[in-house]
Amino acid sequence: MADFENIAKQFVEYYYKTFDNDRTQLAPLYGEDSMLTFEAAPHQGVASIVGKLQDLPFEQVQHQVSTLDAQPADATGAILVVVSGVLLVEAEQRPMSYTQTFHLKPKDGSYYVFNDIFRLVYPAA
Amino acid sequence: MADFENIAKQFVEYYYKTFDNDRTQLAPLYGEDSMLTFEAAPHQGVASIVGKLQDLPFEQVQHQVSTLDAQPADATGAILVVVSGVLLVEAEQRPMSYTQTFHLKPKDGSYYVFNDIFRLVYPAA
Repeated sequence: MADFENIAKQFVEYYYKTFDNDRTQLAPLYGEDSMLTFEAAPHQGVASIVGKLQDLPFEQVQHQVSTLDAQPADATGAILVVVSGVLLVEAEQRPMSYTQTFHLKPKDGSYYVFNDIFRLVYPAA
Repeated sequence: MADFENIAKQFVEYYYKTFDNDRTQLAPLYGEDSMLTFEAAPHQGVASIVGKLQDLPFEQVQHQVSTLDAQPADATGAILVVVSGVLLVEAEQRPMSYTQTFHLKPKDGSYYVFNDIFRLVYPAA
């Protein structure tokens, strides 16, 4: 498996484990130039992004990853990661499909999330 | 509306109009370093990508875009575009949900698709 695929898998595993356990702990994964578009709502910078995640109207949440695709995004080591999966939320009777795209950029020997776009996907018919 | 949002919308409109009309005409939108991951199958370069699109097992197809999100992807003008929507294929009795992520990079005063990741999204429950 190529390096970028390993990094993508490790990132996604860590990201959702952290999200589902205590999503305020995701702050170190973002930077001041990071962008999140969550269900069309745009946020930029660590405080705005983590504030948005904290304000999501659920306490218990579980992400189950169905598919994970990764590609190198440029010559500097950036990686594009696309996840599709299922979201289980305390108050919901049924799971919801979602897709999330991360654009990871290298920084100080590790990676941070530069672009983050999240959307629920509703059944087609 | 920001420039990158206008460009993303125009690109997505043109891309699917061309795809649904004659998908071999998508070749100019890709370059030799472009990557496509289509339902986990990886392709690189114009010939491989357009070959894959040509070989898809349908003749009549229609994309209906449900959501479109865009973010600037770097300081050079690159744009990250995430689409969710519905695919209507001749042989299928029911529409299929999909998500597609494009990483557009500027080239010669226009844009080309550097990264392209496509996935069908199945109902969660």
